[in-house]
Amino acid sequence: MTTLIKNALIIPMTAKEKTIRGSILIEDGIIRSVGSTTEEADEIIDASRMIALPSFVNAHTHLSMTLMRNYKDTAENLQAWLSEIFPIEDKLDDEDIYQSSRLGCAELIQSGCTVFADMYFHAWNTVKAVKEAGMRAIVGQTFMNDAADAAFRIRELAPRTLEAIGSSDMIRLDAAVHAVYTATPDCYVIAVEWAAGRGARLHTHLSETRKEVDDCLKEHGKTPVDLLESIGAFSIPTYAAHAVHISDKEMETLKARSVSVVHNPSSNMKLASGVAPLPGFRSKGINIAIGTDGASSNNNLSMMKEMNAAALLQTIANMTPSAARPYDIIEAATLGGARALGLDGRIGTIEVGKEADITLINTCEVNMTPLNDPFSAIIFAADRKNVDTVFCRGRKLMEHGNLLTIDKDEAIRKTNERWEDILRR
Amino acid sequence: MTTLIKNALIIPMTAKEKTIRGSILIEDGIIRSVGSTTEEADEIIDASRMIALPSFVNAHTHLSMTLMRNYKDTAENLQAWLSEIFPIEDKLDDEDIYQSSRLGCAELIQSGCTVFADMYFHAWNTVKAVKEAGMRAIVGQTFMNDAADAAFRIRELAPRTLEAIGSSDMIRLDAAVHAVYTATPDCYVIAVEWAAGRGARLHTHLSETRKEVDDCLKEHGKTPVDLLESIGAFSIPTYAAHAVHISDKEMETLKARSVSVVHNPSSNMKLASGVAPLPGFRSKGINIAIGTDGASSNNNLSMMKEMNAAALLQTIANMTPSAARPYDIIEAATLGGARALGLDGRIGTIEVGKEADITLINTCEVNMTPLNDPFSAIIFAADRKNVDTVFCRGRKLMEHGNLLTIDKDEAIRKTNERWEDILRR
Repeated sequence: MTTLIKNALIIPMTAKEKTIRGSILIEDGIIRSVGSTTEEADEIIDASRMIALPSFVNAHTHLSMTLMRNYKDTAENLQAWLSEIFPIEDKLDDEDIYQSSRLGCAELIQSGCTVFADMYFHAWNTVKAVKEAGMRAIVGQTFMNDAADAAFRIRELAPRTLEAIGSSDMIRLDAAVHAVYTATPDCYVIAVEWAAGRGARLHTHLSETRKEVDDCLKEHGKTPVDLLESIGAFSIPTYAAHAVHISDKEMETLKARSVSVVHNPSSNMKLASGVAPLPGFRSKGINIAIGTDGASSNNNLSMMKEMNAAALLQTIANMTPSAARPYDIIEAATLGGARALGLDGRIGTIEVGKEADITLINTCEVNMTPLNDPFSAIIFAADRKNVDTVFCRGRKLMEHGNLLTIDKDEAIRKTNERWEDILRR
Repeated sequence: MTTLIKNALIIPMTAKEKTIRGSILIEDGIIRSVGSTTEEADEIIDASRMIALPSFVNAHTHLSMTLMRNYKDTAENLQAWLSEIFPIEDKLDDEDIYQSSRLGCAELIQSGCTVFADMYFHAWNTVKAVKEAGMRAIVGQTFMNDAADAAFRIRELAPRTLEAIGSSDMIRLDAAVHAVYTATPDCYVIAVEWAAGRGARLHTHLSETRKEVDDCLKEHGKTPVDLLESIGAFSIPTYAAHAVHISDKEMETLKARSVSVVHNPSSNMKLASGVAPLPGFRSKGINIAIGTDGASSNNNLSMMKEMNAAALLQTIANMTPSAARPYDIIEAATLGGARALGLDGRIGTIEVGKEADITLINTCEVNMTPLNDPFSAIIFAADRKNVDTVFCRGRKLMEHGNLLTIDKDEAIRKTNERWEDILRR
């Protein structure tokens, strides 16, 4: 099976601000040529009015928190909001997680995203939704509490998710340890050992709020970065969500350990957590990815919006547009995310030999006219409404705005039903 | 002609966080009943899956700058960017302004906006586009330079715009004086006298950047607010765009003179201008409106996005969500804007007797599920893709996302043609 994306404005993300006008040939999910004038294929897609770029990588989310969208989100800060959310989470069952994951997959695809790193409970249900949606995912075996609890989760819960994943090479299970304020150092150590034994990575919240850092200093005499470094947590590849309150010295540690940071600008703004020091990360050579965080602290999963939020926040926080150039933000949302998740050998750029995760953005729209600079256009002018067609490993998940692998209306109806039921429990 | 918007979740904006489940009856453009169970009308619209709220008021834009969208927007700050833009503006002709205004009208309608306050050249062409689009507008007779130039514009240019407006009560011509760094005090005085004689208002940029304030102090020994107050500019109703660098003492002046401020968060972030002190304005009782600024410094005209940007920016800048509650932001984008433009007797709320500028937002969408809090949903979850149907004075301008009064494809094509031609001139 071959697909030709014909005559697109290709942003391959292989060199700074490079564009190519030409076609992309996909064969059995693999990119076979880029920029060619090939004319023949089983399926030909006229992309003459489209930008083609690598599909987005959402490197930090809690997919099933679509359930709690717009719920009690008037809390004054992260801690107050979590105290509203945790009691709800205790009530969730498998079907809740499955339905809300399916809705989340639909929302991700709508914004041009084909892979996400998740941190949530009962991940086997998310695996089911991801398989049906035809996406990729790095799901998380969540860890909180202490060593005994970690051992329980490894023994009782992780096998269920691994069984659901089966032989799929589109889904991986990482260790998702919530944070230093909810998991003990021993819990981290056990989770990391487990992940190391499986070639998996560590996904964790890190220094999201000033309070988290202050409390950690009080309890452990170390910042969260220093604490995790001291217990060897960064001995395996790690992607750290938020990374808001990070000193220059801590950046040296993150760089030395090749820790990727995942920027979540909407959540950090909405919860008044602070502003992650992106220019510092960049100057230190730390890999930067972008995530939406959960829908309940955003309150959406649009990578298009998240890129815009990142550019605007970093510009105003650093009082210079050079803090977040459009190309750099797109890189963080594609190749940077792929690197964070260890997928950059397979996706993150449009190159011969890579798997075809490609998103087409419609430039023939009111808000994209005139186009002028395509990088500025994607970051500052475009939104979810411009995302036209999405491929994951060569398979079309959305075409002209229509989801092809998820029954949208059913996903909406079922999620509403589950949520109403949860509130009655 | 009667239209019934049936069984909507109505946000009338008449009382804090008030919602009504019911129908809205429109007769000849006027709202005749709200929340009733009326069943009969010439046209019945099933709005059971819709939020109905007042259409948005974009209280500060430069509509024709859609032409310069994504153009050389890598400038380091406002002054550097203006130096790229001004040479282009010198080349613009009537047809350029008409076509780019038409495109801008299409973009505004797509985000649920039915009225805007414009500041741009050759406004008679914008008037033509607005009339064809069936929208409202407060266009501006622009003023820059000195008194002699102001007299020339009043004599030679304003009559052309007034003639284009004719007897329409949907369009008004205000005095749009660019800023203290481009117009002399004498220019302001003459423009304000002219506006006062016509019952019009003053639209001006005010204290957008620190440099503007510093330069004004150097040149005039006064801040922009103090300078304009000293020459009597605020003797007529005024709406001041940006208002970023405003002291507490200056707020007292703005309050005493009933000056409205127009918040432009995306532009202020993108151009690294600073953060307007919204909580201060609110505590002083100053009326707050919202604007997108021009498409070339945003780079879009979506009021949906602008409300989200306002909420996120004010939350992070003030480190508390109470700085920008969803209801308050929606109020600024509807009633606050109507007040700024002197239209609150006619639009800005959904009330019996007001003109029917109503926008329907589709809640039966992936990113609006579950809905939970409709105010949070609009500000944090929704985007332009959720704007379904837009009424202006009872007339449908968009239905299920399709523009009814503007040929979108033609507007896109013609604007691209003009822009390519401008670059060759």
